[in-house]
Amino acid sequence: MSDRDAHRAMFVSFEGVEAVGKSTAIQVAGEILNERGVSWISTREPGGTPLAEALRKLVLGKHEERVSDVSELLMMFAARAQSVAEVIRPALAAGQWVLCDRFTDATLAYQGAGRGFDSDRIRILADWVHGDLWPHRTFLLQAQAAVVAARMDARQAGRDRIEQQTDTFFARVARGYETLADADPDRFTVVDTSGTVQSLRDTLAVHLDHMLAERAAR
Amino acid sequence: MSDRDAHRAMFVSFEGVEAVGKSTAIQVAGEILNERGVSWISTREPGGTPLAEALRKLVLGKHEERVSDVSELLMMFAARAQSVAEVIRPALAAGQWVLCDRFTDATLAYQGAGRGFDSDRIRILADWVHGDLWPHRTFLLQAQAAVVAARMDARQAGRDRIEQQTDTFFARVARGYETLADADPDRFTVVDTSGTVQSLRDTLAVHLDHMLAERAAR
Repeated sequence: MSDRDAHRAMFVSFEGVEAVGKSTAIQVAGEILNERGVSWISTREPGGTPLAEALRKLVLGKHEERVSDVSELLMMFAARAQSVAEVIRPALAAGQWVLCDRFTDATLAYQGAGRGFDSDRIRILADWVHGDLWPHRTFLLQAQAAVVAARMDARQAGRDRIEQQTDTFFARVARGYETLADADPDRFTVVDTSGTVQSLRDTLAVHLDHMLAERAAR
Repeated sequence: MSDRDAHRAMFVSFEGVEAVGKSTAIQVAGEILNERGVSWISTREPGGTPLAEALRKLVLGKHEERVSDVSELLMMFAARAQSVAEVIRPALAAGQWVLCDRFTDATLAYQGAGRGFDSDRIRILADWVHGDLWPHRTFLLQAQAAVVAARMDARQAGRDRIEQQTDTFFARVARGYETLADADPDRFTVVDTSGTVQSLRDTLAVHLDHMLAERAAR
């Protein structure tokens, strides 16, 4: 954390189920930071480097063979190791905020709560791969079920292997996210994305301005 | 182990540094088993399934970015999880011997002794990925340094990312293998491959016939 504190750059992750509006939220957050004169990058997980993107294709792609839960988990963290070393840590060290589409919370929600993989094992891997580097702030995006369902239907054709799970699976993922947010209210901020982009912008601006004021006050 | 014992099929791995003769040894072992009427398959790690072979390309391929040690390790075990679930366990359950070009011992030798990655962590991953399924017999192939060097030179152009390490690295790997063999003499058999293929065949035949006799006596 020393690099980040030294430069006051913040690591912000955006979490939530498919179609809840993460891409829009990151775009809006970036625009707000631009207006405040804050330097930032955005990245996504799994992904962010050529090797991590190649792993993303494998882990989200469809395969003839059954992809074992542990293999999926290890590919996720192999990609994350590259993203942390090559993208996230260098950006923070250079004073740039990092807006990240998913991080280890997604693994805890999808592979842990969703697939039932032992969350202690996920935390062991997280410790190996990023140590005490966790997002300074995590926006957990939520929307009314009907809103998410409509957005999901709109992108039906493009669903990847993990998106093609059952409603029961996604209900477990959503509950998993809520449990994480309840356990760490200092880091998590739940944001409702059911409304307009303008209302999302207003909400994010309040939180980002609060973060900027906190940083300035130190 | 119950599947394997029930069918008396054995899981045999072949280990050693590059160019020590693993492919030849597996071919010869297969010919010996054919002569004995034993059904077998051969496979390699990382690899053995389409997804595991895709991971092999990533983990052995050259990249613009630095591949972190932990990412390399996780890709190896992601591939191994697929190989174990899709190839090794089904073959053993069907009564086929499995001749495997490398297994977790290679990870302990290369990523552990070679790269200095914590071997306790490697054993944790091994436990997650294959539990108590370890090779029944591991042939650790060794050859005089000059013999290996000559064979390495012959394939210089085709060296992969891991093969392009320093001599010091390979010395650590070789010592790592020796430490493993010393610690588990019941499983490991050290075989010298400096001589002719015929002498290798004679040596392997003695060991394989001994294994067959042991199995028959149970």
